[in-house]
Amino acid sequence: MPLKIGILGLGTVGCGVVKVLQQNAEDIETRTHSELQIKAILDRDLHREREISGDYLLTDQPEKVLQDPEIDIIVEVMGGIEPARTFILEALQHGKSVVTANKDLIALHGHELLDAANAAGKDLYFEASVGGGIPIIAALKESLSANQITEVLGIINGTTNYILTAMAEQGRDYGEVLAEAQQLGYAEANPSSDVDGLDAARKLAILASIAFNSRVALKDVFVEGISKITSEDLAYAAELGCTIKLLAIAKHHAEGIEVRVHPAILPLTHPLAAVKGVFNAIYVVGDAVGETMFYGRGAGSLPTGSAIVSDIMRIARNIQAKSTASINCTCYLDLPLKSVSDFYTAFYIRLLVKDEPRVLATLALLFAEANISFASIIQKPRGEHQAEIVLVTHPCREGALQEALDSVKAYSKVLSIDNVIRFEKEDPKF
Amino acid sequence: MPLKIGILGLGTVGCGVVKVLQQNAEDIETRTHSELQIKAILDRDLHREREISGDYLLTDQPEKVLQDPEIDIIVEVMGGIEPARTFILEALQHGKSVVTANKDLIALHGHELLDAANAAGKDLYFEASVGGGIPIIAALKESLSANQITEVLGIINGTTNYILTAMAEQGRDYGEVLAEAQQLGYAEANPSSDVDGLDAARKLAILASIAFNSRVALKDVFVEGISKITSEDLAYAAELGCTIKLLAIAKHHAEGIEVRVHPAILPLTHPLAAVKGVFNAIYVVGDAVGETMFYGRGAGSLPTGSAIVSDIMRIARNIQAKSTASINCTCYLDLPLKSVSDFYTAFYIRLLVKDEPRVLATLALLFAEANISFASIIQKPRGEHQAEIVLVTHPCREGALQEALDSVKAYSKVLSIDNVIRFEKEDPKF
Repeated sequence: MPLKIGILGLGTVGCGVVKVLQQNAEDIETRTHSELQIKAILDRDLHREREISGDYLLTDQPEKVLQDPEIDIIVEVMGGIEPARTFILEALQHGKSVVTANKDLIALHGHELLDAANAAGKDLYFEASVGGGIPIIAALKESLSANQITEVLGIINGTTNYILTAMAEQGRDYGEVLAEAQQLGYAEANPSSDVDGLDAARKLAILASIAFNSRVALKDVFVEGISKITSEDLAYAAELGCTIKLLAIAKHHAEGIEVRVHPAILPLTHPLAAVKGVFNAIYVVGDAVGETMFYGRGAGSLPTGSAIVSDIMRIARNIQAKSTASINCTCYLDLPLKSVSDFYTAFYIRLLVKDEPRVLATLALLFAEANISFASIIQKPRGEHQAEIVLVTHPCREGALQEALDSVKAYSKVLSIDNVIRFEKEDPKF
Repeated sequence: MPLKIGILGLGTVGCGVVKVLQQNAEDIETRTHSELQIKAILDRDLHREREISGDYLLTDQPEKVLQDPEIDIIVEVMGGIEPARTFILEALQHGKSVVTANKDLIALHGHELLDAANAAGKDLYFEASVGGGIPIIAALKESLSANQITEVLGIINGTTNYILTAMAEQGRDYGEVLAEAQQLGYAEANPSSDVDGLDAARKLAILASIAFNSRVALKDVFVEGISKITSEDLAYAAELGCTIKLLAIAKHHAEGIEVRVHPAILPLTHPLAAVKGVFNAIYVVGDAVGETMFYGRGAGSLPTGSAIVSDIMRIARNIQAKSTASINCTCYLDLPLKSVSDFYTAFYIRLLVKDEPRVLATLALLFAEANISFASIIQKPRGEHQAEIVLVTHPCREGALQEALDSVKAYSKVLSIDNVIRFEKEDPKF
């Protein structure tokens, strides 16, 4: 008896799923010992020209997919919160296992959906929700499960990595590269979700919840986007032997977990520094395995299709082995969150000041009052009687840095604080 | 009822397994919904001082472990072919699932052992046999299973990567760096298995068999080691925007598969070029997922322990779900092997010639007779009336290159052919 699949949504990702199932049908059948058939696909648009076709029902009526008793597996690739959430709950209630690529939904309602899957005794897999084709969810849930994960650092938004890579390699400005990315289809017309870090924050909430076995909600993630990064900042970073990446950072400390998405200055020797363009990578540190990294295409029809179809194949194997729902929700802890003011990093601070005696000395005093000292200082003349100063601090509490910046802002010789960027490095010594 | 574990071998890796099981016992129990207990450990040496201890029987009598009816899972970390092979077969016959880290054994007898596991209805996992803590076997067998894998490129021997990294970064000679690696414990007193490529070949036979679903035996792997690579070669590679790595290469072509381990000149822009020191990485290309890479520590007590204990946890979940043996042998094809003379790569050829007119022209003619043309040529004076020439060819058949080299050797103006190194790049254009 073939296993029958219903698909919710036939956009780019939905078409990718159909393509992968069709082009590798023979191997998929041999590898799962099951024939997999697409029985029905839900989409509002029944008439659009698509690259794919097949022997399935294309319908705009959800119940024809969700309530078909022959369908064993539902693939949700419509995106958005509703009606995707309701459809998945309904599918589980009707005894179907579910695969979804929906990061928004898993980040916000993963708990509810995984509980529903457990209650129904069915699988809910969502590998494609983070990192496209990169198998990071399976790695965290299974292959690294012997570890206490202490750190997850991710480049998990291709748009911002494309922009920062082009700015770093070509010395170009943010606005220009963003416009190019929009033309190439790497950035959306309204790029906010990517460039402001929200997309990465959703994915980080998912990764951190799994890595630390403790639910991390989207609202728990501190978020800062890349729109303030300039080509000057990237040039200074290069002078310091570093580059700038939008990092999704989750760390497990004795006193709690911290989860944050922001531009970070990263040494060129770090494995993530070599991740260029639209590629994604997730760097994971475990107490036994040490440093690992998982690299690949974080988006796209076929890479996402790879993750989704591999999840379908897991479910097919589980159905055969009668072992569904063996590894759904893994959040069995309730760890405290570290507050933002307790984040502890080194900082890069770029200032425009009056080029007068004692300015640097006064700045050093203002930081020293907050117990912050410098690892490195770069000063360059800027026009008449002005200087640009880049201060690199030793690691300090975020709260102390904010206090110091308040004093610096009030100092009359400081014309502007042009950027403040965190380092991702224990203690930058240059 | 706790699941009971028997361990064969209490050397470095065996101690790593015990440590990981002990230090993360609580999480492991919660994650698997099973208590895991080490019941007995087999080792010849009952009295050696070890860093670990526990409430288990340490015995030198195999039957006390293999025939204990209470033991559910056997971990084989003794290494070598015999008696490891016999012990694993015996364990499976006694109804135990098995985890092994033994690359030599899996490369040579994986077929027999996986068949025995299938016949017994038990699991045989061997994630730790390739890439230490890097979950590459699970990725190929499960997370990327929707793909046709077309290419696997691995840096899967830490010793040689340590040596080549130090030679590239510090301009040092092979012998000196090898001696240092031996002092640091990164290379063995007899380094042949590492530096001659045999260790990587064993791991590649395992990876290629899984990636292409077709059994690749150790004898099918073309192998060449790194001992002929000099600091000059690394300097020329750098001039060409490249570096040299010992690569394990498996490619799936329409006409067959090719599997080879040899030093390869790799562009610095390739993700594997950034893999430094003792780290390992496996770069995998699939028809749906595109390019992916898996990076981490390829050896060591705890990283290997991470892979082994994660495999134990899979078995624990499978036992609970009564679904063992669902994914053992995956070699359902029997693909032809491409012959060595049909390998198709670009070549780097370093020659010492007499510095006389027409020498380069004659060389070009000799290669042209074999239908080989050059992408790049570097010539440097060497002492009186001699010149060193580096020829970079366009991609050509290995057979054609060998023919051309025979003519070149016979040419009286050629004093020596000092090195011939394959490129890993479609067509090097500089």
